[in-house]
Amino acid sequence: MKIGKATVPASAICTSDDETIVVRGADLCRDLIGQIGFVDYFFLLVTGRKPDAAASRVLNATLVAIAEHGLVPSVQAARMTMAAAPDAMQGAVAAGILGCGSVILGASESAGRLFLRIDTLAREKGLSLNDAAAQIVGEMRAARHAIPGYGHPLHKARDPRVAALFKVAQDAGTNGRFPAIAEAIEAVLPGITGRDLRLNVSAAIPAVLLDIGFPAEALKGVPMLARTAGLIAHLTEEIATPIGFALSYQATREQQYTGEVPAGWAPKQEA
Amino acid sequence: MKIGKATVPASAICTSDDETIVVRGADLCRDLIGQIGFVDYFFLLVTGRKPDAAASRVLNATLVAIAEHGLVPSVQAARMTMAAAPDAMQGAVAAGILGCGSVILGASESAGRLFLRIDTLAREKGLSLNDAAAQIVGEMRAARHAIPGYGHPLHKARDPRVAALFKVAQDAGTNGRFPAIAEAIEAVLPGITGRDLRLNVSAAIPAVLLDIGFPAEALKGVPMLARTAGLIAHLTEEIATPIGFALSYQATREQQYTGEVPAGWAPKQEA
Amino acid sequence: MKIGKATVPASAICTSDDETIVVRGADLCRDLIGQIGFVDYFFLLVTGRKPDAAASRVLNATLVAIAEHGLVPSVQAARMTMAAAPDAMQGAVAAGILGCGSVILGASESAGRLFLRIDTLAREKGLSLNDAAAQIVGEMRAARHAIPGYGHPLHKARDPRVAALFKVAQDAGTNGRFPAIAEAIEAVLPGITGRDLRLNVSAAIPAVLLDIGFPAEALKGVPMLARTAGLIAHLTEEIATPIGFALSYQATREQQYTGEVPAGWAPKQEA
Amino acid sequence: MKIGKATVPASAICTSDDETIVVRGADLCRDLIGQIGFVDYFFLLVTGRKPDAAASRVLNATLVAIAEHGLVPSVQAARMTMAAAPDAMQGAVAAGILGCGSVILGASESAGRLFLRIDTLAREKGLSLNDAAAQIVGEMRAARHAIPGYGHPLHKARDPRVAALFKVAQDAGTNGRFPAIAEAIEAVLPGITGRDLRLNVSAAIPAVLLDIGFPAEALKGVPMLARTAGLIAHLTEEIATPIGFALSYQATREQQYTGEVPAGWAPKQEA
Repeated sequence: MKIGKATVPASAICTSDDETIVVRGADLCRDLIGQIGFVDYFFLLVTGRKPDAAASRVLNATLVAIAEHGLVPSVQAARMTMAAAPDAMQGAVAAGILGCGSVILGASESAGRLFLRIDTLAREKGLSLNDAAAQIVGEMRAARHAIPGYGHPLHKARDPRVAALFKVAQDAGTNGRFPAIAEAIEAVLPGITGRDLRLNVSAAIPAVLLDIGFPAEALKGVPMLARTAGLIAHLTEEIATPIGFALSYQATREQQYTGEVPAGWAPKQEA
Repeated sequence: MKIGKATVPASAICTSDDETIVVRGADLCRDLIGQIGFVDYFFLLVTGRKPDAAASRVLNATLVAIAEHGLVPSVQAARMTMAAAPDAMQGAVAAGILGCGSVILGASESAGRLFLRIDTLAREKGLSLNDAAAQIVGEMRAARHAIPGYGHPLHKARDPRVAALFKVAQDAGTNGRFPAIAEAIEAVLPGITGRDLRLNVSAAIPAVLLDIGFPAEALKGVPMLARTAGLIAHLTEEIATPIGFALSYQATREQQYTGEVPAGWAPKQEA
Repeated sequence: MKIGKATVPASAICTSDDETIVVRGADLCRDLIGQIGFVDYFFLLVTGRKPDAAASRVLNATLVAIAEHGLVPSVQAARMTMAAAPDAMQGAVAAGILGCGSVILGASESAGRLFLRIDTLAREKGLSLNDAAAQIVGEMRAARHAIPGYGHPLHKARDPRVAALFKVAQDAGTNGRFPAIAEAIEAVLPGITGRDLRLNVSAAIPAVLLDIGFPAEALKGVPMLARTAGLIAHLTEEIATPIGFALSYQATREQQYTGEVPAGWAPKQEA
Repeated sequence: MKIGKATVPASAICTSDDETIVVRGADLCRDLIGQIGFVDYFFLLVTGRKPDAAASRVLNATLVAIAEHGLVPSVQAARMTMAAAPDAMQGAVAAGILGCGSVILGASESAGRLFLRIDTLAREKGLSLNDAAAQIVGEMRAARHAIPGYGHPLHKARDPRVAALFKVAQDAGTNGRFPAIAEAIEAVLPGITGRDLRLNVSAAIPAVLLDIGFPAEALKGVPMLARTAGLIAHLTEEIATPIGFALSYQATREQQYTGEVPAGWAPKQEA
């Protein structure tokens, strides 16, 4: 069935014949394997160009920052899935990746898009970053939109990964425009929302990545790639020391049933 | 519901309080972000120890080797999924990851386990690698088991990624035991199967990774992590230049319907 | 980690002890197995009440209407995934389900929400359905929002499933309010958009389901449940007659590579 | 890339033109929508033929039996995924489906294959079902293979769904061969394993389904289709009454960290 207009698939990423695999213009086996690190290769795959040293350092730092934070919901989902289907690690990884949504790790992309709007407004209207941030955050609040990338359930003071990432970016000599925008939002938020919400890692990541020219469309991919590494570590541990079912048991120890029961029935022991 | 014996979940990977995130014994923000590359961090997450320079170089090379090979089935599945559900990139990545199964990318793990069996047999019985390979491959053939990691639909001569990976491992000064085992299988295969099946990338990857002490249980994770990078590149391209539906249209242009039709009906135009 | 306010999980769907499983107030083994059809049980699970005969008939009809339409993109994704990972049918089903997104099958939910807005506007302002439809569709067009549920890539005249579903609903004696709203949109669309877009199955399904009191929040679940049945049929066929890799081969026969190549390189045979 | 031999995709399930959709030889809109229930349609999709009344009744009963059992691991994974990615219900359903693996719901298929082996052995060697069961179960134990479909973490006496399903099958007048095989295993198990493991629902389902001619290849699909219904109910409840994050919080309240910590560090409050 023909859906949409394009009927001939085209791609600029890779071509090959039986002897040679070409990726982004380079010969994979001659020019890339052993010649380029995987993170730089990821940048090349996504953007079509190799990162400079600063971009490489910053991209590595963001991936390290977001790869792992213990038994978070997506890791629990992955370990429960592995316990139920131990022959299919790819299914458990996929279950974990599916938790990279708008509420949890997807905030990186929406925060990045917010920063870009503030950047554009400040440039076009000649506003200070704080004024541009105040205007756009004010509009978002009026429309009851959440401000992505601020506040954290555990790290009530500023998420410690923020300072670490900003320091890497600064040491690498990046421009600093988007971290400044991220901090402008942090500065105006209490006045607008009445709450002292601090920058979290999901705002720091797009801030430093936009500074190195990483495309906004691919921002969501960074936490996904990073978490895949963490998920593989957890699933390797799950094989040796299974806790997937222990997690699901604990999760329901205090559960409440709020529905009806048959006449005259009471549970002998709730499960 | 209590399933299995363990009821208290334990993990050795990560702990945290509101100020500090500890990963594998290190302070994430002080010791890791900006101090360690993402690939070395992946090794640390999985194994609990930092890789030496040789291990880092080899692991990077395997990830680069397997991340991308054009519009392979899992990339097509991911791009079709993205076309149908553009708001949920995580779903498209997951659909791609789900294609890392026993037939395609999962061969890395099964080839690795085969190498370990040959290694053990050779050591225990004092056999040459060729003799140990011949014995185990012969048993597998007798039981009609496929030999994972040999032959390739496109690269009929040896997959060019094999030599590239073996050279990286050699240059890095690794031991060479498992690449030798992989080549021992290649040497005995024609005599046993009558077919000149050459090493492919799914055998080269576990060969060089086992040499650097990467755990067999996590081998399957390497192509998954690598492909996640390739999938993110393809999905970023899909956002800008959609081909997901063009792929599905092309796929069915010659499709045949082999079932019944209602009496008297003929298609005006098959879809 | 505590995320959000609720800390004790509660659910009204099911409870059990070692002898009895209670679902929505009934004893599963005594009152439901063998006493209720699966589709009525689905209605009960979702809403907490058993459907009447009309609701049962309509819900069955919608599930039949949307379960299968040949080698559509999500079925292709599932069959390719099964070919790559034949040991994990659940992964192939999941890959197919992931294609139930906003563009393809998810339109059922967004069309349903559109009908509810028109229903509310007509009631509150005392407007005719055509006037209410014209107002809301006009606003959506002005905001450049797509109108979900109208037009079809193959069925250029009205999707034949629409009349079949509306007839089932009419025969079952349902109220007809939401099908009337769906047709009101169809009536005003040409005047607003200049295009003669006709009702498709993704608008007919929510129209007849809202009429039987099926909740808007669960509308997206109907095509997902239905497609799961179709996917299982296709994957059962894939086991016997594999075409997953043939689909991916066909899909790329005319593919174009639009990127760079290494200096002096030309493909011997593009793959 | 051409993988395998088949290059032209063929399917016997569905074809269509712009006016007609043909499924398994019938006109979907004229012969099926409103004329056949969804469960019978599922049987038709999978097998190519309509079920008789007994088969319809039994298939409905199995789907009702396995659709829902409270906050089991796959439901928890789905609800956590929905909490993290509320815009993508298809991702949460997929995460739940991925938990239909060899340990949990996939046992239906492996139990079915075990019954078929016993059936064949008994017929070919003229053995009683108990003798055939004893021989095959004995071999499986000797090879340290688990016996799928016996024992249950909650229902220590016989899973109550077993009697309910067997009664439906008996009332429907099915042959009873495979339930008898399932009970033969139950009879010989204590003598072979020393443990009084009773039939659970994952053995009863394939027993009654094989009796109605449901294909072994599709057995795994029955719990998947059933659970999709349960998952949609839970995700509809999750939208109204979110507990995804509460589940993950509860799951880790007693978690233990068994790894190293930085010198001098102790958690202020473990998270």
